Amino acid sequence: MLFDQITIIGVGLIGGSVGLAAKTRGVARRVVGVDRDMEKLKRAENLCAIDAGTISIAEGARGADLVVVCTPVDRIAEVLIAAFEHAGPVLYTDAGSVKGGLAAAVEWARPDGAAYVPAHPLAGAEKNGVEHSRADLFQNRITIITPDSSDAHAVQRVAAFWEALGSRVVRMNAAAHDRTLAATSHLPHAVASAVAGVTPVDWLSLSAGGFRDVTRIAAGDPALWAAIFQANREAVLAALGLFANRLTEFQRLLEASDRAGLERWLSEGKQVRDALGT
Amino acid sequence: MLFDQITIIGVGLIGGSVGLAAKTRGVARRVVGVDRDMEKLKRAENLCAIDAGTISIAEGARGADLVVVCTPVDRIAEVLIAAFEHAGPVLYTDAGSVKGGLAAAVEWARPDGAAYVPAHPLAGAEKNGVEHSRADLFQNRITIITPDSSDAHAVQRVAAFWEALGSRVVRMNAAAHDRTLAATSHLPHAVASAVAGVTPVDWLSLSAGGFRDVTRIAAGDPALWAAIFQANREAVLAALGLFANRLTEFQRLLEASDRAGLERWLSEGKQVRDALGT
Repeated sequence: MLFDQITIIGVGLIGGSVGLAAKTRGVARRVVGVDRDMEKLKRAENLCAIDAGTISIAEGARGADLVVVCTPVDRIAEVLIAAFEHAGPVLYTDAGSVKGGLAAAVEWARPDGAAYVPAHPLAGAEKNGVEHSRADLFQNRITIITPDSSDAHAVQRVAAFWEALGSRVVRMNAAAHDRTLAATSHLPHAVASAVAGVTPVDWLSLSAGGFRDVTRIAAGDPALWAAIFQANREAVLAALGLFANRLTEFQRLLEASDRAGLERWLSEGKQVRDALGT
Repeated sequence: MLFDQITIIGVGLIGGSVGLAAKTRGVARRVVGVDRDMEKLKRAENLCAIDAGTISIAEGARGADLVVVCTPVDRIAEVLIAAFEHAGPVLYTDAGSVKGGLAAAVEWARPDGAAYVPAHPLAGAEKNGVEHSRADLFQNRITIITPDSSDAHAVQRVAAFWEALGSRVVRMNAAAHDRTLAATSHLPHAVASAVAGVTPVDWLSLSAGGFRDVTRIAAGDPALWAAIFQANREAVLAALGLFANRLTEFQRLLEASDRAGLERWLSEGKQVRDALGT
């Protein structure tokens, strides 16, 4: 047992999966869930993702030696600040997709002896909701941690937590995380949504596997993603600029019927995709 | 047996799969393959996708009652014209991704009594090459035919051929086909390639399933796709214009930090993708 009690605040797909993985793998003796929605907490309890649930952060945080914040990205700061007050000098981590500024924003409220180690498990699904939780959601996935604290022992314990859930932990600074994820996650989401958005529904029956793959993540939760885009605004706009330039290149080559140029342009994309593997 | 001998010209993934499906399903007594590459023909024969192979259209076309052209899209017209000369007054179809102008371009060479019924099976894979052929490649897929001929009997026989390979046949006019496929297939390909093309290879290890899905088709053959884009230039440029406008909308909403607007924009894409199903 790494922890006696972990408290998960925000019990959706990620929070529920953290609970399931923690219980399945013996990472914590007891898992408490906190959510604004009592129904979700009941479903999580039925799934054995949590041992007990409450709508009160004060109540749920009490007795935790690790608090894991799994709310949408725009609520993490306020939830952490509330948790600091009630759980006190223990360990804190989160699962948000954008990391820049978060640690600094809550630093004023952090109690002496408490350590917050920001984290982002690179795992998810098109289907949100606690009912889609899986004990293996983090298995063989990367979790990025962006510690700016000098508390090496706390960083090591939080890293051990995410590893115990099955993931491989990579350390980065928060700004580099946000720039990278803008390119590898946030831009692709916007692009997938734009492809779907310009396709008349009547034409869907004449689409094949390619369209299905390209647009799959467009089914993601609009509210969650609007929050992610806003939180990582600068980096997403920069990635979008690079992407728009790249597509303008394609447009010019096509306008010029530059067959060799089109082939070269496509080969550059293929080279990157081939490096990723299937 | 629908046909005594079918001759497949161009024995790659599609041609090989036509052969495998035709033989597995008893659609033809004999399948002849024609390709410029003798090695590919030998592989196709070993896979039982063809009964015999030749590098000569003259030799391969002889005795066919159906010729199926499965070359890259930019070679279909010249191959059809050569086949017309050697197979004579029989049935012709193809598997090209772009249909506009093709029938008109070869009409002058069509022998009396010959009928060409253009077709496009909506099937494919990132992996080209005859070695990836599958007897079920067309199973439960749509094949679009774009007949402009008034020879109803020929149209019906070619439709029966593609149905016998396992697909569902849909009739459209060629221009509507090209406009639709520009949106459902060609634009997504360019976009997938552009996303991959702007991603530094070093960052790939920090990508997850979303990036993998969005960029999957970017691994396609650049030469094949350059030919498709060039052949469907006008419709692809139009689709690209709509897409660019849609993405500019996203950019403006993000610049303005318009959270409700972003959520609405994402919801519109989600609505289309949800209509497609998983």
